[in-house]
Amino acid sequence: MDNLIIGGIELKSRLFIGTGKYPNHKSMYEAIESCGTQVVTMALRRVDLDSKEDNIIEFIPKDCILLPNTSGARNAEEAVRIARLAKAMGCGNWIKIEVISDNKYLLPDNYETIKATEILAKEGFIVLPYMSPDLMAGKMLVDVGAAAVMPLGSPIGTNRGIRTKELVQIMIDEINAPIIVDAGIGRPSEAAEAMEMGAAAVLVNTAIATSGNPIQMAKAFSLAVEAGRIAYNAKLGATGSLAKASSPLTGFLGEGDK
Amino acid sequence: MDNLIIGGIELKSRLFIGTGKYPNHKSMYEAIESCGTQVVTMALRRVDLDSKEDNIIEFIPKDCILLPNTSGARNAEEAVRIARLAKAMGCGNWIKIEVISDNKYLLPDNYETIKATEILAKEGFIVLPYMSPDLMAGKMLVDVGAAAVMPLGSPIGTNRGIRTKELVQIMIDEINAPIIVDAGIGRPSEAAEAMEMGAAAVLVNTAIATSGNPIQMAKAFSLAVEAGRIAYNAKLGATGSLAKASSPLTGFLGEGDK
Amino acid sequence: MDNLIIGGIELKSRLFIGTGKYPNHKSMYEAIESCGTQVVTMALRRVDLDSKEDNIIEFIPKDCILLPNTSGARNAEEAVRIARLAKAMGCGNWIKIEVISDNKYLLPDNYETIKATEILAKEGFIVLPYMSPDLMAGKMLVDVGAAAVMPLGSPIGTNRGIRTKELVQIMIDEINAPIIVDAGIGRPSEAAEAMEMGAAAVLVNTAIATSGNPIQMAKAFSLAVEAGRIAYNAKLGATGSLAKASSPLTGFLGEGDK
Amino acid sequence: MDNLIIGGIELKSRLFIGTGKYPNHKSMYEAIESCGTQVVTMALRRVDLDSKEDNIIEFIPKDCILLPNTSGARNAEEAVRIARLAKAMGCGNWIKIEVISDNKYLLPDNYETIKATEILAKEGFIVLPYMSPDLMAGKMLVDVGAAAVMPLGSPIGTNRGIRTKELVQIMIDEINAPIIVDAGIGRPSEAAEAMEMGAAAVLVNTAIATSGNPIQMAKAFSLAVEAGRIAYNAKLGATGSLAKASSPLTGFLGEGDK
Repeated sequence: MDNLIIGGIELKSRLFIGTGKYPNHKSMYEAIESCGTQVVTMALRRVDLDSKEDNIIEFIPKDCILLPNTSGARNAEEAVRIARLAKAMGCGNWIKIEVISDNKYLLPDNYETIKATEILAKEGFIVLPYMSPDLMAGKMLVDVGAAAVMPLGSPIGTNRGIRTKELVQIMIDEINAPIIVDAGIGRPSEAAEAMEMGAAAVLVNTAIATSGNPIQMAKAFSLAVEAGRIAYNAKLGATGSLAKASSPLTGFLGEGDK
Repeated sequence: MDNLIIGGIELKSRLFIGTGKYPNHKSMYEAIESCGTQVVTMALRRVDLDSKEDNIIEFIPKDCILLPNTSGARNAEEAVRIARLAKAMGCGNWIKIEVISDNKYLLPDNYETIKATEILAKEGFIVLPYMSPDLMAGKMLVDVGAAAVMPLGSPIGTNRGIRTKELVQIMIDEINAPIIVDAGIGRPSEAAEAMEMGAAAVLVNTAIATSGNPIQMAKAFSLAVEAGRIAYNAKLGATGSLAKASSPLTGFLGEGDK
Repeated sequence: MDNLIIGGIELKSRLFIGTGKYPNHKSMYEAIESCGTQVVTMALRRVDLDSKEDNIIEFIPKDCILLPNTSGARNAEEAVRIARLAKAMGCGNWIKIEVISDNKYLLPDNYETIKATEILAKEGFIVLPYMSPDLMAGKMLVDVGAAAVMPLGSPIGTNRGIRTKELVQIMIDEINAPIIVDAGIGRPSEAAEAMEMGAAAVLVNTAIATSGNPIQMAKAFSLAVEAGRIAYNAKLGATGSLAKASSPLTGFLGEGDK
Repeated sequence: MDNLIIGGIELKSRLFIGTGKYPNHKSMYEAIESCGTQVVTMALRRVDLDSKEDNIIEFIPKDCILLPNTSGARNAEEAVRIARLAKAMGCGNWIKIEVISDNKYLLPDNYETIKATEILAKEGFIVLPYMSPDLMAGKMLVDVGAAAVMPLGSPIGTNRGIRTKELVQIMIDEINAPIIVDAGIGRPSEAAEAMEMGAAAVLVNTAIATSGNPIQMAKAFSLAVEAGRIAYNAKLGATGSLAKASSPLTGFLGEGDK
């Protein structure tokens, strides 16, 4: 089998899902169901344990792993506080670190992210840090205890695809931990491409939630992720620059082919 | 339902498969089975009705539509002769026109292809011409009776992907007939992309046959094509240049957010 | 020397300029002067020999070769009529064939273009046909007498760059006549790239005329074209995938480098 | 005027040159002369003050600013030692920080680079750090005193171009200091593109030194950098997706155009 293991848990689905921007909780629920994801991320802020009705957690299938994120944190300290709060609120011990002080492109602060990762990993969290793709920062994240590393493909919510391919591919090749492409993936083909490159998984939110039909789009992403993973394992054929005939080209009619 | 109709026949699978370059007939057969394709192309030359054992047609599932191609033809006249021969040999009335006199890049001759298409369509063939992407040539092919038009993504056998996207997208948008991307598709992600663009189907050969595991790769392509088609129907979300948060970014910890 | 010879005339500048879309004739004139172009194209329709004041030809430096185009022609016959009219009006015997019936993307009709080229070349015109990039059509154009072939980079006026690179590069490599990239070039870097690919020249209009400063932008394009041509002749270094140090990496401080 | 000011010095040329990989010192000297660069980087290790003959510094024109780099340093401490040594040896007070412990892709360590930058800026060096493109790390470098920031386009010596465009463009837009694209630029068109994006300068080495003709290639790069800078200042025209005619398209022959 080719399951992904993170934090000791074996995952069949390599598509992680975010919960923002859906038309409503119901469509989010159905999208999650339709794609078979096993890991669902949400901003802790959205979780409101007092109100049962509007509580986003009620709309996440029970068999999914919750991956609360530290969205809103602007430094390591804030991220650590949010993570502890999430655990105290019963969200479990998985945490996605997001430390962002850039309000325009929402690019993460790798330094503060490493600090937060180190603290939380020591406390027993399964830490998945969101980061700006950078080989050395990725290695440091793993060194301080990250369970996986989540470089961005392009800025959050842009649907621009994996525009950081050069750096992400090197991270995949050189870092001895699962690399999960997070942010920017806007189309199923781009999710497939990440998987063909050897990514362990992808996290998708905006591309599904803001599509014309989130339930169908979630299904499309799940098929694409599976396609890309199978292709990665089956090994892609070589790329050439000159044409090579698939069909015999000469001599069919016996008329002086060279 | 969202089936593709060509020549009056309704197709569930939008992945067409070529038969060249497989390690052996058996692996070809299994790849075809694994992806559920309904249209299989092969060079007429490969068909040898006298020998039952080595006859490629014996290794194509009976419920597939045969799409013999005119590989080896260097002008319209030769293509027409090969097409008629195919029909006479019992290959049915579907024909893929390939007229190629360029031995290096195997680029098709659109003029001769139009001529052959016109003649064969009049004779009742279901004609699918392989062509160099060009809006006006594509329109002419449809005017003279092509059942679908097959522009190349990049030269045959290169696995270089859809490098003619600019022209193919315009053909998809402007031509009132199925556009099937043929040649050059090297990865499942590229097949998904063609479908997201609105292609009616893709034809894949080299990428499957020369991969490390043709049976698995055929499966990957079939999932990717399905993913791309679903995404096309569900409508992709918009692409932006600035980031838009999926998660609420401010105010979580109530510390002076702006 | 590395001059370009077309129709027996030796050109020092490999930047051809179009005359549409300028804020006014004066800025057009200054842009032409600023870049040192020797070939200037204009739609015949703009030429009004009766009115001296508003006549665009008055604003084209006398030492430039006029390249009237057949803009407005929708078939070969119309193109031929416009070409003859241009000659009769004193525009000389260079003609750029444009045969366009697609009003949305302004994509040329290669077939009709070939027909017009054949007729006009026989009449002694120096024919430069605008075309949709296609190896076989390009060869035919040369066979029937084209002095150079002008494939599009992307649709006219889009500033989208050379999105047909795959096909244009093959034309450059395989066709024994000057290939001039026309349409779509939006930035000096794209003009440089066309020249690095081996294009004989580029034709630029919209990118200069609609820029913030046409005179400066014309200068920028002329430098870029020169840069690209020099690079082509000097031969680019090889591209690698692993890094290769430019500076010695090890042992500087003598501390146990491996 | 549009000169670049770094460390209080006004530079006319925005092309910085590296000194590695040339066939010999003489061709390096001539390449430098041919492009008019004013800033030349070299690994300190190459500098051998005892031997006059083979000393690379003898082959750098006297009016160039020396930019010794800390190539060979694997951490901040080593970089700082090399920088001080360079100054002591008479190389002046400009220093390019390179801290690299990845031997395969030669990707820099942003953390250690920030540390070294802080120390050396405080000592009065004009510090230009080479870095993996990352908005927050770039801001920190400027905060601790970098005179300019040098993100990589692709790994050193690969000639692969600016594959980190997404991140570099954001750095250019958001960081209030000169951004100099360093590493990976393989063609003049890519240098022009960096400048069109708004880079303050580019540093080129391998693409010139390993080309077929370093002297000519240096000239080509200098023209391309100038072209790109002029275009940036003149402001590029907008990019569209539908075609817009440069020439009037309808009615020329007065035959019922719509």
